[in-house]
Amino acid sequence: MKGLWLENQQLELRTDIPVPEAASEEALVRVCKAGICNTDLELTRGYYPYSGILGHEFVGVVEQGPDNLINKRVVGEINAACGKCRYCLKGIPTHCENRTVLGIVNRNGAFADYLSLPVANLHLVPDNVPTDVATFTEPVAAALEIQQQISISSDDKVLVVGDGKLGQLVAQTLALTGCDLLAIGRHADKLANLEAKGIKVGYADDVQTRSFDIAVECTGNSAGFDIARRALRPRGILVLKSTYAGNLSLDASALVVDEITLIGSRCGPFAPALELLATEKIDIKPLIHSIFPLDEGITAFEQAKTKGVMKVLLEISKT
Amino acid sequence: MKGLWLENQQLELRTDIPVPEAASEEALVRVCKAGICNTDLELTRGYYPYSGILGHEFVGVVEQGPDNLINKRVVGEINAACGKCRYCLKGIPTHCENRTVLGIVNRNGAFADYLSLPVANLHLVPDNVPTDVATFTEPVAAALEIQQQISISSDDKVLVVGDGKLGQLVAQTLALTGCDLLAIGRHADKLANLEAKGIKVGYADDVQTRSFDIAVECTGNSAGFDIARRALRPRGILVLKSTYAGNLSLDASALVVDEITLIGSRCGPFAPALELLATEKIDIKPLIHSIFPLDEGITAFEQAKTKGVMKVLLEISKT
Ligand SMILES: [Zn+2]
Ligand SMILES: [Zn+2]
Ligand SMILES: [Zn+2]
Ligand SMILES: [Zn+2]
Repeated sequence: MKGLWLENQQLELRTDIPVPEAASEEALVRVCKAGICNTDLELTRGYYPYSGILGHEFVGVVEQGPDNLINKRVVGEINAACGKCRYCLKGIPTHCENRTVLGIVNRNGAFADYLSLPVANLHLVPDNVPTDVATFTEPVAAALEIQQQISISSDDKVLVVGDGKLGQLVAQTLALTGCDLLAIGRHADKLANLEAKGIKVGYADDVQTRSFDIAVECTGNSAGFDIARRALRPRGILVLKSTYAGNLSLDASALVVDEITLIGSRCGPFAPALELLATEKIDIKPLIHSIFPLDEGITAFEQAKTKGVMKVLLEISKT
Repeated sequence: MKGLWLENQQLELRTDIPVPEAASEEALVRVCKAGICNTDLELTRGYYPYSGILGHEFVGVVEQGPDNLINKRVVGEINAACGKCRYCLKGIPTHCENRTVLGIVNRNGAFADYLSLPVANLHLVPDNVPTDVATFTEPVAAALEIQQQISISSDDKVLVVGDGKLGQLVAQTLALTGCDLLAIGRHADKLANLEAKGIKVGYADDVQTRSFDIAVECTGNSAGFDIARRALRPRGILVLKSTYAGNLSLDASALVVDEITLIGSRCGPFAPALELLATEKIDIKPLIHSIFPLDEGITAFEQAKTKGVMKVLLEISKT
């Protein structure tokens, strides 16, 4: 089969990759569409060691697996857990000690004709959710993880830093809590997306220091971190949603004096994400920049790396 | 009156300081004993700008104030709050926007014959608590703040990093929760104090990585931070109890991937601290290294700065 293979930070379209064998309790999924995410770009830059097929945001059709899933559109949680370690036994398989992660850690990903995943990871896509839209299930779930970790109410003043793909989804999901939300970024067009949904938007200069209860950092750069940090009131909460190249330098004494909480946030729950997409509470359409066939995957990656470009999708097969 | 005055990072014993005027709703307190804390040492090193009388850990006798306090021994919460700002109105005066802090921010401290504090800040010292012991109320309260911020149960595996004054009190207070506790440090004699109380102790090499639910950093140096960070399991909590010289460099991506929570922790509740001292659940005696008269305050500071020295007290007046 074909697939976009990463090896020594070189991405190439290979045509001779064997179709994966679905292990017991796994399903074989024909990939329909898949989204290129910042994590994929970071993997190509060597931020984490990985070789194999990239891609973890996908919609596919089950070709081998349990009867109730055969020929159905599915999305899949990306962490394949062992089921036996203390994290699995505690019910947090996303932190399984022995996990493989689709297209990220020791498991071939979604930018290929086929992928395999544990059946337990798969979720049926509701009929009314278009395939393009459903490719956003994983990042919407990641945005919802924030609300799993901290409680956010209409009393909270919340800042989202970053108007890129992640910031857009974080802002839209947080807006649903009814909190007093401000989303800031550097791009008038991207901020306009959010403003059209009734979300207050602005630039870094619009952020009043020491005034927010919660700040969510979605830029992955230290300037964004500093803005989020400065925005927080004493005892405020800084949520880190992005990964960073290299170390971050921070004034730990000020964290102590202000009793700030800093919390890292990663993968989230798929079921409520699909529910938000099915009820159209999240608007995905403006986030899609372009769609390429798998054969043009290298070009798609080049475009995804271009500053200001939102989501680039790969179309791999028809549903 | 006499007092240890800090000006341009120079500490000097002044003899011509006017006795403070107790403002309305304040009390005038004759200081009996006071403890030198790391914060005082940091102020002399210029980590924070401050000029005035140092000192915030004290026991005194009320000379002017409400009848029920006159001639009684008291300890005092160090943050003098405005009562009007949003933090005061929210019931967290320790983060008052307009606060002065005894011997730290815009308020003369305890290393002097007299100090003034709002009456609301004062707590009577129970008769059975010796004055030496009661000087530890403030740092014991600071140690208890951890338990105000996060819930700790007997199921939790907890690491305390640092066997100095702060680490000793943090370990002793955490041990009372029944958690599975390990305290590590670099000094056999200091660790022996804790071991004598039935607390498991060890050195950095004894810390199994990715195995602790909670780690409390009490060293104030980046090596201690790194040990605490590495000790944490995914979704673990790192409590920062110390301030740091300069910035701390950390791997923020790893915080995100492991969904670590980092929480700064400062001043805590006095009433339960006094209760622990009154019921002798915390053993203070081994922490007192020496006691100097105020006249020898400069020498006392020199000793307090010496590596390995625990608490140095100043005796300023008899009770
Ligand atoms: Zn992604
Ligand atoms: Zn597992
Ligand atoms: Zn102190
Ligand atoms: Zn106030």
